[in-house]
Amino acid sequence: MSASRLLIVKIGGNVIDNIEAQNNFLESFAALPGKKILVHGGGKLATDLAGRMAVPVKMVEGRRITDDENLKIATMVYAGLINKTLVAKLQAAGCDALGLSGADGNAIQTMKRPVRDIDYGLVGDVMHDSVNVAGIKKFLDAGFTPVFSAITHNGLGQLLNTNADTIASALAVSMTSVYETSLVYCFEKKGVLRDINAEDSVIPEITQAEFESMKANNTVAAGMIPKLQNAFDAIGKGVSDVTIGSADSLHLIQQSRSGTRMVLRK
Amino acid sequence: MSASRLLIVKIGGNVIDNIEAQNNFLESFAALPGKKILVHGGGKLATDLAGRMAVPVKMVEGRRITDDENLKIATMVYAGLINKTLVAKLQAAGCDALGLSGADGNAIQTMKRPVRDIDYGLVGDVMHDSVNVAGIKKFLDAGFTPVFSAITHNGLGQLLNTNADTIASALAVSMTSVYETSLVYCFEKKGVLRDINAEDSVIPEITQAEFESMKANNTVAAGMIPKLQNAFDAIGKGVSDVTIGSADSLHLIQQSRSGTRMVLRK
Repeated sequence: MSASRLLIVKIGGNVIDNIEAQNNFLESFAALPGKKILVHGGGKLATDLAGRMAVPVKMVEGRRITDDENLKIATMVYAGLINKTLVAKLQAAGCDALGLSGADGNAIQTMKRPVRDIDYGLVGDVMHDSVNVAGIKKFLDAGFTPVFSAITHNGLGQLLNTNADTIASALAVSMTSVYETSLVYCFEKKGVLRDINAEDSVIPEITQAEFESMKANNTVAAGMIPKLQNAFDAIGKGVSDVTIGSADSLHLIQQSRSGTRMVLRK
Repeated sequence: MSASRLLIVKIGGNVIDNIEAQNNFLESFAALPGKKILVHGGGKLATDLAGRMAVPVKMVEGRRITDDENLKIATMVYAGLINKTLVAKLQAAGCDALGLSGADGNAIQTMKRPVRDIDYGLVGDVMHDSVNVAGIKKFLDAGFTPVFSAITHNGLGQLLNTNADTIASALAVSMTSVYETSLVYCFEKKGVLRDINAEDSVIPEITQAEFESMKANNTVAAGMIPKLQNAFDAIGKGVSDVTIGSADSLHLIQQSRSGTRMVLRK
């Protein structure tokens, strides 16, 4: 018997910040059949709120630090406003969405990032056993579509800010123990571009070896490297299909007609 | 076969605003055996945030109006910060808490309050069929303890601000179709007081007739009337047991040794 399929889609700031893009994406997502999970980032809203509240964004050596005030803002914006807005819209589109942080049902338990050179503050790192597969399976089996914000907890009562791309990858990898999982990272481009100035120069397929040589030759944008790294981690750990593409092409990505597909080898 | 039991506890601002009271309450709540649901209000945090963001609290004829900005604040504070903080602490105390708004799993669908003399804005009124009993039962049967913030939705994509006392009462009433339900309203006093200046003058039991005469004689504080009305609505609609008491006496309330118990008649 083949395992049933699970699709995990991650959306970022461009879909959160643009209401029209958001509504279009949510309608496409709601219409997809089968078991699925949505993971969302934060967009500009948290930075906007911090500005209105006059809470300084703390940076150390160019890296953002999550202090207590900034964690509260992230929790309000990600787990509150954005999460519930997406859930209400998905419900209206006929998708039985269930908004979750990692604390809810102990779905994702992380560990405060150990302090080495920099103390990143209240940031949670995903570990190999962070994802509560049995708990999340209960939601899926009951017919719900989990919608994850990137707020997790450490199991000791502390909420932690976590990278949404990493959550999506960890969910996809962990859930392979019970489902055949696919992962789609939606971002503002149609895929990984051969030429950053040509929107239509999407590379349909990248192997692990090609990614390594792109890094070595500096032919991949620095901002794309962590996303691609997460994508290759996922494919290397048993996720069936990992694609990076545009949120407005979700149905085409599903048909392998859009986006950049990661493959271990050709 | 008798139906299994379900306890619904509502906590208000005094437990939200005071960290020590909150921690003590959550430990008692986590330790209670059996199926249970927590409903929480908002406390002062939303007003504080509105102040910091310089969003005016809009009042018409002494009534608070929820405009779009204030709904966003309520969603951030109630469904985000407070809800996830409570859930993370309950998880640490061994309770498999699941934070929910009414939009999540379509748990509570309300209707924007009709405009008569005043337009209250984005406020949701609970209707007789607002509570998704089957959906909430799925969570309880799977072993989760739902933790509800007082944010609901209208099923058409709009979030709505809703009274937390009313949500608690509606949940208790609706869930009687599958459970024998008890409802506890926690507030800052040990119960309904015979003498507002004597903390220990708790009335152990009030009948519907006594409540009506207390209202007529003005021997009940005006602020208590809606809470008592919700309590009597619940007991009149089949909830087995409704008590008003202090959050720090939850275990005593459970043993009928503290608080004020509503009864239809003696």
